[in-house]
Amino acid sequence: MAKFIYFFGEGKAEGNGNMRELLGGKGANLAEMTAIGLPVPPGFTITTEVCTEFYKNNRNYPASLKAELEENLAHLEKVTGKKFGDEKNPLLVSVRSGARASMPGMMDTVLNLGLNDKTVKGLIEKTGDPRFAYDAYRRFIQMYADVVMGMDRDLLENILEECKQAKGVQADTELDAEDLKKLVVLFKEKYKETLGQEFPSDPVELLWGAIGAVFGSWMNHRAIVYRKLNNIPADWGTAVNVQAMVFGNMGDDCATGVAFTRNPATGEKYFYGEFLINAQGEDVVAGIRTPQPINKEGGASDLPSLQEVMPESYDQLVKIKNLLEQHYRDMQDIEFTIEKKKLFMLQTRNGKRTARAAIKVAVDMVKEGLISEKEAVLRVSPSQLGQLLHPSLDPKAPKEVIAKGLPASPGAASGAIVFSAEDAEAAAAEKRKVVLVRLETSPEDIHGMDAAQGILTARGGMTSHAAVVTRGMGKCCVVGCSDIKVDYQKKQFSNRQGEIFKEGDVITLNGSTGEVMRGAVPTIQPDISGDFATLMGWVDKYKKLGVRANADTPKDARVARNFGADGIGLVRTEHMFFQGERIRAMREMIMAEDIEGRQKALAKILPMQRQDYYDIFVEMKDLPVMIRLLDPPLNEFLPQEEREMAELAEIMGMPLAKVKAIAEHLHENNPMLGHRGCRLGMTFPEIYDMQVQAIIEAACELTRDKGFNVVPEIMMPLVATYNEMHLLKERADKVAAEVMERLGVKIKYMVGACVELPRTCLIADRIAEDAEFFSFGTNDLTQTTYGLSRDDSGDFLPFYVEHNLYEHNPFISIDQTGVGEMVKIGCERGRKTRPNLKIGICGEHGGEPESIKFFHRIGLNYVSCSPFRVPVARLAAAHGALEEEMKKG
Amino acid sequence: MAKFIYFFGEGKAEGNGNMRELLGGKGANLAEMTAIGLPVPPGFTITTEVCTEFYKNNRNYPASLKAELEENLAHLEKVTGKKFGDEKNPLLVSVRSGARASMPGMMDTVLNLGLNDKTVKGLIEKTGDPRFAYDAYRRFIQMYADVVMGMDRDLLENILEECKQAKGVQADTELDAEDLKKLVVLFKEKYKETLGQEFPSDPVELLWGAIGAVFGSWMNHRAIVYRKLNNIPADWGTAVNVQAMVFGNMGDDCATGVAFTRNPATGEKYFYGEFLINAQGEDVVAGIRTPQPINKEGGASDLPSLQEVMPESYDQLVKIKNLLEQHYRDMQDIEFTIEKKKLFMLQTRNGKRTARAAIKVAVDMVKEGLISEKEAVLRVSPSQLGQLLHPSLDPKAPKEVIAKGLPASPGAASGAIVFSAEDAEAAAAEKRKVVLVRLETSPEDIHGMDAAQGILTARGGMTSHAAVVTRGMGKCCVVGCSDIKVDYQKKQFSNRQGEIFKEGDVITLNGSTGEVMRGAVPTIQPDISGDFATLMGWVDKYKKLGVRANADTPKDARVARNFGADGIGLVRTEHMFFQGERIRAMREMIMAEDIEGRQKALAKILPMQRQDYYDIFVEMKDLPVMIRLLDPPLNEFLPQEEREMAELAEIMGMPLAKVKAIAEHLHENNPMLGHRGCRLGMTFPEIYDMQVQAIIEAACELTRDKGFNVVPEIMMPLVATYNEMHLLKERADKVAAEVMERLGVKIKYMVGACVELPRTCLIADRIAEDAEFFSFGTNDLTQTTYGLSRDDSGDFLPFYVEHNLYEHNPFISIDQTGVGEMVKIGCERGRKTRPNLKIGICGEHGGEPESIKFFHRIGLNYVSCSPFRVPVARLAAAHGALEEEMKKG
Repeated sequence: MAKFIYFFGEGKAEGNGNMRELLGGKGANLAEMTAIGLPVPPGFTITTEVCTEFYKNNRNYPASLKAELEENLAHLEKVTGKKFGDEKNPLLVSVRSGARASMPGMMDTVLNLGLNDKTVKGLIEKTGDPRFAYDAYRRFIQMYADVVMGMDRDLLENILEECKQAKGVQADTELDAEDLKKLVVLFKEKYKETLGQEFPSDPVELLWGAIGAVFGSWMNHRAIVYRKLNNIPADWGTAVNVQAMVFGNMGDDCATGVAFTRNPATGEKYFYGEFLINAQGEDVVAGIRTPQPINKEGGASDLPSLQEVMPESYDQLVKIKNLLEQHYRDMQDIEFTIEKKKLFMLQTRNGKRTARAAIKVAVDMVKEGLISEKEAVLRVSPSQLGQLLHPSLDPKAPKEVIAKGLPASPGAASGAIVFSAEDAEAAAAEKRKVVLVRLETSPEDIHGMDAAQGILTARGGMTSHAAVVTRGMGKCCVVGCSDIKVDYQKKQFSNRQGEIFKEGDVITLNGSTGEVMRGAVPTIQPDISGDFATLMGWVDKYKKLGVRANADTPKDARVARNFGADGIGLVRTEHMFFQGERIRAMREMIMAEDIEGRQKALAKILPMQRQDYYDIFVEMKDLPVMIRLLDPPLNEFLPQEEREMAELAEIMGMPLAKVKAIAEHLHENNPMLGHRGCRLGMTFPEIYDMQVQAIIEAACELTRDKGFNVVPEIMMPLVATYNEMHLLKERADKVAAEVMERLGVKIKYMVGACVELPRTCLIADRIAEDAEFFSFGTNDLTQTTYGLSRDDSGDFLPFYVEHNLYEHNPFISIDQTGVGEMVKIGCERGRKTRPNLKIGICGEHGGEPESIKFFHRIGLNYVSCSPFRVPVARLAAAHGALEEEMKKG
Repeated sequence: MAKFIYFFGEGKAEGNGNMRELLGGKGANLAEMTAIGLPVPPGFTITTEVCTEFYKNNRNYPASLKAELEENLAHLEKVTGKKFGDEKNPLLVSVRSGARASMPGMMDTVLNLGLNDKTVKGLIEKTGDPRFAYDAYRRFIQMYADVVMGMDRDLLENILEECKQAKGVQADTELDAEDLKKLVVLFKEKYKETLGQEFPSDPVELLWGAIGAVFGSWMNHRAIVYRKLNNIPADWGTAVNVQAMVFGNMGDDCATGVAFTRNPATGEKYFYGEFLINAQGEDVVAGIRTPQPINKEGGASDLPSLQEVMPESYDQLVKIKNLLEQHYRDMQDIEFTIEKKKLFMLQTRNGKRTARAAIKVAVDMVKEGLISEKEAVLRVSPSQLGQLLHPSLDPKAPKEVIAKGLPASPGAASGAIVFSAEDAEAAAAEKRKVVLVRLETSPEDIHGMDAAQGILTARGGMTSHAAVVTRGMGKCCVVGCSDIKVDYQKKQFSNRQGEIFKEGDVITLNGSTGEVMRGAVPTIQPDISGDFATLMGWVDKYKKLGVRANADTPKDARVARNFGADGIGLVRTEHMFFQGERIRAMREMIMAEDIEGRQKALAKILPMQRQDYYDIFVEMKDLPVMIRLLDPPLNEFLPQEEREMAELAEIMGMPLAKVKAIAEHLHENNPMLGHRGCRLGMTFPEIYDMQVQAIIEAACELTRDKGFNVVPEIMMPLVATYNEMHLLKERADKVAAEVMERLGVKIKYMVGACVELPRTCLIADRIAEDAEFFSFGTNDLTQTTYGLSRDDSGDFLPFYVEHNLYEHNPFISIDQTGVGEMVKIGCERGRKTRPNLKIGICGEHGGEPESIKFFHRIGLNYVSCSPFRVPVARLAAAHGALEEEMKKG
């Protein structure tokens, strides 16, 4: 029979730190900490298997669970010397979730479980503090009613408010034991009135209720959203940790805190954390009171530190910190409580950190001999790296600081102010950039935080919900900005100067300094030297997949090269046709009624195109540049508005009706599947002739004039048949030969196919007879393989993703099962004909870490992504290679 | 070294009738006829390999061809006792094309080659007929200038006209030898003036020119069009036949004619043909003079018959006819020439025939013991059969006959009059039905003939170009209608009564009687008893693939059953939503803003849907009926015009702006890849619930009330993921269980997937975990696999098809290499999970013979096509099975 519960306590544990899958992160680490002798309150972990079984069996527990729970509860009573439901010496427990991957704030927690009208007396007797006991009791009722029973939180909160008003006080702390005792009665009455049943008094019944709530919360909305954002499979499940309570709120010799073994924002090596005196653990994270620093390192706040206030506990904590970091060989995020001067460890886990910190910690730890280079590479998450690569505020730009808060998550963000997660989400759907401003954030806000450019909160510390979550997201965040007063009603905030900032006003955040500025402040390029360069050196040592960039301009090309691209994987020539003069010549070509007219217009475009290619080749020197010939339907180049059409008619000396007729003729019902890609090159060969001529001329000139070894790669888009590839290659070769003959320069060049249709994958063996390379256009391949238009899926794709109908959004992370299989078939068949066929991808997926790892596994030669994603892709490629190595060895 | 030329003559031949691929049909049969002792003018055949080599090597001949030609020419001189270029006894030859498949009128021919200023004298000496000789000479110059040199035909024709005018005569025959001699001089002068070179006098040079012209004509526009229409691969190539001339125009003891061993229109067993006295072979086919019948059987024309005029030659011809039919075991189409009472056979080939004739001949020949049932089945071409299955004129309908011609190709056709192939093509592009009216047709008109509903010509006989081509096309045609006078200039014709019929006026043709009627005459269903039923009995005996019909109405279902369908393979439920009241309820549902609103509207649709299914089930009795749930995007059900939208707004009690906003919201850029198919069923499950409920209720009621054994098959469209199929099946099963429980009736039903996306094929193993059947939607699968929108490909698909870039139009005949491969993958993977998975197809390809044979080969269970195509599909399925059997055995 399966074992469903693992006990820990008194220096022994049934589980250990390697059992994350079964015990969840928290449970595994509680067991590990217990085993290595740290002071951990005893308790037990109900495994993730129970959660999985629970959902498999229509929310029923395994049959043997009840007996196992009773046994462990008895064990816990024995170890603590307390008894569950005992009037004299009651055992109180916390019930917390703990999934395999850390999901901060996502799961529900119940504290002080075990209190009822009888046991509260025992607690008073033991602590001699009736106020504490009744406060714990009323908190428990509130928490249980909310979390376990789903009662509207405000129902009890209002009673508390009324009570405070009746007494004429502001803070909860001003209520005395009698007040709280009355509250308990009122709360229970309200509970009965609302739910039609008495508040349970049997602690075991309450415990089962709480366990059920934790498992239930695995499928609540915010947990689902978090999992989506972090690619956590729904079938992992959560564990439940039942642990004897310790109290940080039993007086001023009590405290509770959270700390990181190194600075999680910068990675600097000093002990970093916050605590609150006389508080329960949740108070620190919730950000309701502004916490004190644990020491004075790193320019922490001026409040008294733990080191000053409780030096003995601090020293003990430092020893534990050092032990943990050595033990886990990684930066730790710990939670502790001091009950009557006695230190307890409630949690340790690998600390979330910014990309900058991740790099610094990894590089430092290699220097410290703690980890290897390969481990260091694997310690930095590719998806996080992006935050380092985007611009930060230009220090020389003028800026007007309107307020200052805590620098919770670095980076810079500008956007219009919004005051709710819903508004942020709505704005993102319209592609408006916004900054989400809140008093504080809660797990319900996650979707809005994801949608916003940056987050600003008036309350909370560096470990508040907003701070922790945004760091994980790699999103700029300023918290605890007490300079501002937020008015949700009026949708505005004011600063200390009394200036009003309304919804829609633009502000800028600096997540590295905590500054809030008026308007949009200009930004500068990131620094990619130092630790970053060291790490990327290791990355390049271990990666096998090449990383190119998609670049349409010399500027893009420069950025790409700067970020370590191995070449350019996609020049979209159509982007070149939209600028200034060119669009006019392009439209002239489209309006032309015969080949002569088209050739006349193309002759105007030729020198511009040649210059385009020349400039990009110059930037890339000897690195390969892959150019895709004209791809979009001609319709896209025509004006859509009546007024613009009239202008075009005048320029062309054509009646408006004719312009309209041509545009109408070019309109397509499904342009994605229409007259585009190489179908244009087949029906209007003069267009591709011009482009090939421009490419080869530019390459020849550079070779002749500067001695560069330019090897242009010419890509034919939307190839679907052998005939297309064969004839296009033949024609391109002919044009190239003519140019080289005329200029008297010989260069190497390649002609290949953009593989973006299922048919092309299926006949890849035939395509490869002519194509010298394949570049998978995974965007279009996803659209056709899935029968899914990226433009039109907005109506149902979010529904699908939310309801787990698609594993991921297939336009973000490649659908490995379907589209990926198509790519695999294309590779295999292509290489059957041409074993050394060079294969890459040029879709959006080229910058997405999971996709990149997949492309590594199936043996592609390179991926191509946007210039700013190049380091991300390099890192992901290294991860792919190292993960494969680990699997093999 | 390859042998490129095959000689025949004097009862011996190097080739034989089985060498069609190498010698072409004409060449192989000339060899065969020679070998079995028939009187064939000697000659030789240059093989199709030379043609293939010619095009492979940039229009150059194989090196050894020259020597081989000289050798064969010498042999021919020896056999005929004449000499090429000889002044005394010149050898004259014809040069004709001859492809593997018969391509009547498509290839160019040069006659009388060998004539020059010297040899013409020899011809006069031999024949004693200077007029004949000069007439042959001037014809040769005209033909050579036109066909070989591409000179504008009118340039010489005008000189001929002037000559006749100068002499004041009407017909060519009124010119005498001197006139013709002068014409030769004038022609040669014009030739030189136009082409800048002398008309060649060296017969060998002329021969090479003619051979080159034949090979060149393989790639001319009309040949390409014909091949496309008849699915003849371009790489087959043509042979060239060089044959000693015999003359049917050397006087009144000469004649030339064509004949069929049975009637090619009806299949009746009598010798049927036409001839002209004192004429060359081309005159009969060209339809310039109205020919005489070879005998008086079958109600032929009143003109004197060959039997009467030249009884000896006729008797000899009858003997040859019988010999040929016994030898080839098929109805033959023969060409003969009588030179000075001596009969020569110029060609024999399997005769083209109408579907009706094909069936009668096949069934008769089985009865005659000439062929087997299987051979009979293979003798009827499925693509031709369609012409029998469409309505013919209702004999009881009033009709006003305005003219009468020859019944060249049976069937009935109504349409607006057009006078050019171009106009016919333009009308077809706009889906207007037209009848093409011409003086006579020529190969250049083929594309227009294909586009028209029927063809009416004022001139020409039953073997004229129009007659032969339309019979092959299965298209209604009336020829030789001398009742009408056509005026191309005014775009009108008049009849004997002087009534004027203008372009755009509607007429009706009866291809079985030759009648031309005013307006559109109503039609009736075809007779499918008699020989048809006999043949279809054999068909069903040998076919293995099931044939179902696509039917959306009880009427369709009745037709399908009548035509022998094995069930219904596709009920498109959306078609049911467009009628009357329903579209209103449908729009109400779309406009509804919540689930309640939708359910309210759906409740109105439910009883209508139930009745729809009930009625179809009643028609089909125990045969299976597969129903596809709602597929198109909701947008398709909304009005598009402002006025209609305003109406809808009023009906809905909604502001117009709101109706517009909803319509705007539903608009998609690529609806083909958008929110449709089961994506609707996933996001609005209440729609599919309603449909499943209606289906199961109808089936239960019928089972209960009439004891029918209805097994509905419910098809989920556009399934792309495992989750979709799994959840849709689960939900459908739930609804079905509820209905059966409520009605107290248990029925069998199936739930399956419409496989129309590449992804679905790739994950077919997973889909088949839930899907109990697959129905391939090959239309959409073609669109997505090829990245090709059927709606939008009009701009380039014709270009592609014409330029051989696609083997076929992939929307007509399935792309076996790409889309077919995708279907194969889907079948294999689906059956890996569920070995007895029922698999069919429901796209347009289900009625196309080559596609059906493909589906047979890859092991599908059935195809589904439009009701009228069912017999075609059954026949194609039998062909597939028999061809496979032949291959194996």
